[in-house]
Amino acid sequence: MDAIEVIRAKRDHGELTTAQIDWVISAYTRGEVADEQMSALAMAILLNGMNRREIADWTQAMIRSGERMDWSMLDRPTADKHSTGGVGDKITLPLAPLVAACGAYVPQLSGRGLGHTGGTLDKLESIPGWRASLSNDEMLDVLRRAGAVVCAAGSGLAPADKKLYALRDVTGTVESIPLIASSIMSKKIAEGTGALVLDVKVGSGAFMKTEETARELAETMVALGTDAGVRTVALLTAMDRPLGRAVGNALEVAESVEVLAGGGPSDVVELTVRLAREMLEAAGISGKDPAEALADGSAMDVWRRMIAAQGGDPDALLPRAAETMTVEAAESGVLTRLDAYAVGLAAWRLGAGRARKEDPVSAGAGVALHAKPGDLVRAGQPLMTLHADDTGRFARALEALEGAYTVGPSTAPQLPLVIERVTP
Amino acid sequence: MDAIEVIRAKRDHGELTTAQIDWVISAYTRGEVADEQMSALAMAILLNGMNRREIADWTQAMIRSGERMDWSMLDRPTADKHSTGGVGDKITLPLAPLVAACGAYVPQLSGRGLGHTGGTLDKLESIPGWRASLSNDEMLDVLRRAGAVVCAAGSGLAPADKKLYALRDVTGTVESIPLIASSIMSKKIAEGTGALVLDVKVGSGAFMKTEETARELAETMVALGTDAGVRTVALLTAMDRPLGRAVGNALEVAESVEVLAGGGPSDVVELTVRLAREMLEAAGISGKDPAEALADGSAMDVWRRMIAAQGGDPDALLPRAAETMTVEAAESGVLTRLDAYAVGLAAWRLGAGRARKEDPVSAGAGVALHAKPGDLVRAGQPLMTLHADDTGRFARALEALEGAYTVGPSTAPQLPLVIERVTP
Repeated sequence: MDAIEVIRAKRDHGELTTAQIDWVISAYTRGEVADEQMSALAMAILLNGMNRREIADWTQAMIRSGERMDWSMLDRPTADKHSTGGVGDKITLPLAPLVAACGAYVPQLSGRGLGHTGGTLDKLESIPGWRASLSNDEMLDVLRRAGAVVCAAGSGLAPADKKLYALRDVTGTVESIPLIASSIMSKKIAEGTGALVLDVKVGSGAFMKTEETARELAETMVALGTDAGVRTVALLTAMDRPLGRAVGNALEVAESVEVLAGGGPSDVVELTVRLAREMLEAAGISGKDPAEALADGSAMDVWRRMIAAQGGDPDALLPRAAETMTVEAAESGVLTRLDAYAVGLAAWRLGAGRARKEDPVSAGAGVALHAKPGDLVRAGQPLMTLHADDTGRFARALEALEGAYTVGPSTAPQLPLVIERVTP
Repeated sequence: MDAIEVIRAKRDHGELTTAQIDWVISAYTRGEVADEQMSALAMAILLNGMNRREIADWTQAMIRSGERMDWSMLDRPTADKHSTGGVGDKITLPLAPLVAACGAYVPQLSGRGLGHTGGTLDKLESIPGWRASLSNDEMLDVLRRAGAVVCAAGSGLAPADKKLYALRDVTGTVESIPLIASSIMSKKIAEGTGALVLDVKVGSGAFMKTEETARELAETMVALGTDAGVRTVALLTAMDRPLGRAVGNALEVAESVEVLAGGGPSDVVELTVRLAREMLEAAGISGKDPAEALADGSAMDVWRRMIAAQGGDPDALLPRAAETMTVEAAESGVLTRLDAYAVGLAAWRLGAGRARKEDPVSAGAGVALHAKPGDLVRAGQPLMTLHADDTGRFARALEALEGAYTVGPSTAPQLPLVIERVTP
């Protein structure tokens, strides 16, 4: 078998055989198929597609390129959640301890942010002392002690995906549903969870801008999980506006702690509780009410144990940016629109995100929102506060926010928070 | 500008701007656009196409990546021919001196063979002493002394094309008409010829298997040449059976010398004369009959001067392979079919061609045909003689010839030698 044969098959609208897929992924991981060959294949896949069988084979081949974790030694079911990424999406932070408080183990491997969407690890790293990198033994230890663990995926998990993702990033081949779905699902299946809830975001701040593409991605991933024996369900959720009132690393940790303390913005609470219910149901755990676990402090207890078990101080003061700037409403009326992408871009430019993998992020930078769509605002009232480590960052953040919100005479329709549920 | 932006534009079925094409070719030549990015772009171009303006810009950008030759100091018009390659296609050898004998200068840059089609330089290198590599000054000197020169393209000519062609070869992105046309025409336009005749082969032994794709390629190249100010015309010609009776380097030189001596197989003579007429017409030279220049020995005189000017001995004995094997007709009848690709593959396996650029070729190896389609054959009569440097090569050559020819009761239709003429 050789790379050109496989590339030609897909280029000419053919269906790749299981043997071709196994060989090309394995040979690429070993460096026998060159980057320029894999990028040509990725472009052919992006343009000509793959069917369900091919995507499943592709995913399985990527899983087999590395180790597969196993939690069968644990005495309770495991459940995990994956979000396709959005602006202000800190849901993992309250959700993982909440689901653990309700009786499941939550072993979650997360990533760092790139571009306008933040990364869960970046957020947690704003907690003094907290460590993202754990060995498999440490991961099991935190899971046993706290019930939940959120950490970086080790290099042994789906190495083919890591290599392929970095290649797709520089070759314009990211936007392929078969490749996105197999990338996400290879890591989640290799992670060994028994149940998985996918939060597929829709809107300007999300990777998927339309309900149609989001639904296609969700259906593809649910099928992949199901075929691999993972009880999988997906929700399509709104990302036309930011989630919650905080966008930025430490700002989002603070908001997550508010939610765990029984408060916090209603959309964050609602989505956290809904996803928790889905995870518990998929894990086969009944009789537990997540809303109650937020109210009675049991989720907060798990959070504190989980943070402490990874070296973090749950009582430490969070870093704050040195400089702030307030954006005020120019007129009175209803805030009818607040564009998620623009707010994410502003937070990124303020220092909360990175342009390249090796860049550092600012813990304190970001945007604190004082009004959400549907809220009444008065002229001169603060709409949002920008946080940055130096004042030089404000100008480009303000540029990103130009035209990003509208104040009008009456409310405008927006996407429902949970748009649709996708099951096998 | 960045590579991902250009890749995405073509991936999403957009038209690349002149600025995007100029930038991507120039940055790729400098190494700022990586191979994996260019191969993704090449696949997007293969699958989504380019329009006439984009192909012209792509070609011009490749020309500008290197030097452009200029023959304006010469006192007669220049004319050149390019063939897309076939089995037994030695036409350049008699044609270049023939056209020079009729009054044009023929400055021809040629290539080496790869795969089942031979290369003009490989053929000429079977002449003892003959050198393919000339400096620009040497090239001009041979042209002035002989009227025609056939030599290797220097590394300064369209370096972007050289780099891109090597990449396409390993990434399954060769079979794109915009990329093939711009690759050929960038070299021919940079070569500085005033008139160009394209011989686009059609059939099993050609790169283009059907008249439709050959016509599309021919029309694209004629438009590119015309837009660049080169008087360009194309012929679609038959490559379902081999051209002439000799396939292999020295064997084809010998047949070419026969043609120059006024003999040779009728198809080689006919195509040589037809292409010479097209070249003279495109160069604006009238009143000269190429058939006469073959008959009166004036083309042979140019040949001898041209070979000698490049260090070759036109009187030297040509190399012969040490071993021969005869393939005989199993029954009597008409030879109805003799597949060009199979004969080319057999010659390749006998040692006449190379699998990789760095491989040597055998000067003497090849196939001598004793019957062509339409000829009557008797059972036991030799159909062809295989020539190789060692007997170990015969088995795989015979394998290639299995089912490659048919002897039947009556003649079967075959493609006319010249199928169609394509003008601007």
